[in-house]
Amino acid sequence: MKLICEGLDLSDAVLKVIKATASRTTNPILEGIKLTASEDTLVLSATDLEISIEKTIPADVKIEGEVVVPGKIFADFIKKLSNEQIELSVTNQNTLKIKYTDSEGYLACMPAEEFPVIKQFTDGDSFTLSKFNLRDAINKTIFAAATDDSRPILKGCQFIVDNNEIIVAALDGFRVAQVKHNILSTSNKLKFVVPARSLGEISKLIDGDDEEITLYISNTYMMVTLGSTKIITRRLEGDFIDYTGALIKNPETTIIVNKKQLEYAIERASLLSRSINNNSITFDIKDRLLTVASNSDLGNVTENLTISLEGKDLLIGFNARYISDCLRNIDEEYIKVSFLSSIYPCSITSPDNDSFTFVVFPVRLYE
Amino acid sequence: MKLICEGLDLSDAVLKVIKATASRTTNPILEGIKLTASEDTLVLSATDLEISIEKTIPADVKIEGEVVVPGKIFADFIKKLSNEQIELSVTNQNTLKIKYTDSEGYLACMPAEEFPVIKQFTDGDSFTLSKFNLRDAINKTIFAAATDDSRPILKGCQFIVDNNEIIVAALDGFRVAQVKHNILSTSNKLKFVVPARSLGEISKLIDGDDEEITLYISNTYMMVTLGSTKIITRRLEGDFIDYTGALIKNPETTIIVNKKQLEYAIERASLLSRSINNNSITFDIKDRLLTVASNSDLGNVTENLTISLEGKDLLIGFNARYISDCLRNIDEEYIKVSFLSSIYPCSITSPDNDSFTFVVFPVRLYE
Repeated sequence: MKLICEGLDLSDAVLKVIKATASRTTNPILEGIKLTASEDTLVLSATDLEISIEKTIPADVKIEGEVVVPGKIFADFIKKLSNEQIELSVTNQNTLKIKYTDSEGYLACMPAEEFPVIKQFTDGDSFTLSKFNLRDAINKTIFAAATDDSRPILKGCQFIVDNNEIIVAALDGFRVAQVKHNILSTSNKLKFVVPARSLGEISKLIDGDDEEITLYISNTYMMVTLGSTKIITRRLEGDFIDYTGALIKNPETTIIVNKKQLEYAIERASLLSRSINNNSITFDIKDRLLTVASNSDLGNVTENLTISLEGKDLLIGFNARYISDCLRNIDEEYIKVSFLSSIYPCSITSPDNDSFTFVVFPVRLYE
Repeated sequence: MKLICEGLDLSDAVLKVIKATASRTTNPILEGIKLTASEDTLVLSATDLEISIEKTIPADVKIEGEVVVPGKIFADFIKKLSNEQIELSVTNQNTLKIKYTDSEGYLACMPAEEFPVIKQFTDGDSFTLSKFNLRDAINKTIFAAATDDSRPILKGCQFIVDNNEIIVAALDGFRVAQVKHNILSTSNKLKFVVPARSLGEISKLIDGDDEEITLYISNTYMMVTLGSTKIITRRLEGDFIDYTGALIKNPETTIIVNKKQLEYAIERASLLSRSINNNSITFDIKDRLLTVASNSDLGNVTENLTISLEGKDLLIGFNARYISDCLRNIDEEYIKVSFLSSIYPCSITSPDNDSFTFVVFPVRLYE
């Protein structure tokens, strides 16, 4: 292998694919980035067997070939060379020579044959929506996915694709996040679960809002192409949990409150309960006032917010973090919060539509 | 105690004095911030018994008094209130009420009598220099001070004040940093050592370049006033190490090299030796070329830099980090590096003057 490419192209590509390398693994090849030179391109690819990212850049290829470089060191090295023209060549089977200006480096490499094959596919189902809607659906749900391994399916987001819309949802037993968006077309009705971590990487790679994007679904994988970057992620096997029972249909109490004011009030209240009191805060809804309060050995905070209330007065407790996580992902100036009683979860939505619904389970009050 | 002040003033002051609170201590009062309300000001002060920072802000004082609040929680709380007008009052002996807009918090406090007295002094010696020179002398030396406790005096910077200049120096056994600057006046010839950490805090609080600043020295303390902020730091007892023998007077080899180019070359070379090879790199000086190289199981890097050379060729090894630390603190476009031989330390200076001198000890080469 021998080629010349621009340092800026190469460092951009390396920083994109490095996200798919495995960080804690007993198999060093998964920490590597595979370089493939052919015709007039260099393809960089990496995978941890769950997600794979592949990026193609222009290159002046003198000798075709492929090699696997250690991901982290190669990335650190190339990052410091982004203004130079770079010559990459494999000098013997296991060494990559990196030549720039008057200097050069040699990196010990791994054989390309050992790198896992990343399957691309064009058969199977597909659906198309706007980039904005895809990114919005991902960003408003992945934070609610589980992070521990006790129920692996909950580390993913469920996609339900109908003729006109998708419903994306994630939950971890303490809260649910659900987003609905219009789609442009689909080959079929679909239902599948994809790891939240993969979706996070996809979201970060989406640029531009107005364009369309098509997602391809096989029995085991989802694939998406963003310019010269191709991402393939494994689907999670198993049935997702039916969370629809947690969505409130006929609330007993509904309030409209300024989002930012509520966010700040919860932040301040939770400061005093964070480490000591399991981060619990209370919402006391009465007349046109929401009182957010916390109490611990360190002191107590009482925040009064003006609201518009429909229905009954209510006293209910929450873990502040779960409410804050939802609020952080909302752009609306005002939000609607609906309650059934102090032992049922609340729903947080826009006052105007049901494009997103966040459900947060309450905590028991000891008073 | 009862007063009203601006949230912006209060949060600015809290963020300044919090730096002097102790972070790991068995004495909780040292994690606190003392609030003292009298006449038309609120004074905030904190100390870990090594450094103390005191800041005065305007306040509408209704009832004079003092109290000690838990530093971290108070700071986190006030940070989130910077746009409001805040009323602080002590409701009973051990509780501070914080009132803002329609909301309020109560913080458990500590009695002010237990807070250590911070001694201010006006007798003793003093010297005056420009803010620019003080900050420059601090920033170019503190990085070289020792961070472990094996020789406590080396955790400080030595100040030698003469009629016209100060010499500030720090060292940790691997490198020395020395800065000389003109001063405007002094009461006496002085020699003292101050903890590098305290100097770092003073440097961060210095704003503006042109103004003068006066440092007051007693037998055990140094004091400096920056606007409405007063900083007092303990002096370190004991004799500083005489490092002047490490400064090269008659070099055998002297090179002039582009600072940025050398910095980048060392960064890349050290990538491959960082974890494996004790971070060692070699300088090979020959004709008009400096070759910076590293070698490890991961690979090797050879960087060639054009230099101007006076004297003999030389091959010498360094720990890359110690050279990088020095380069990071240099603004000059070109630097002069002087050597005696491969077993003596090198000196890094400006090509034009001796305002700063960095000395770095070599490592043995195994080749």
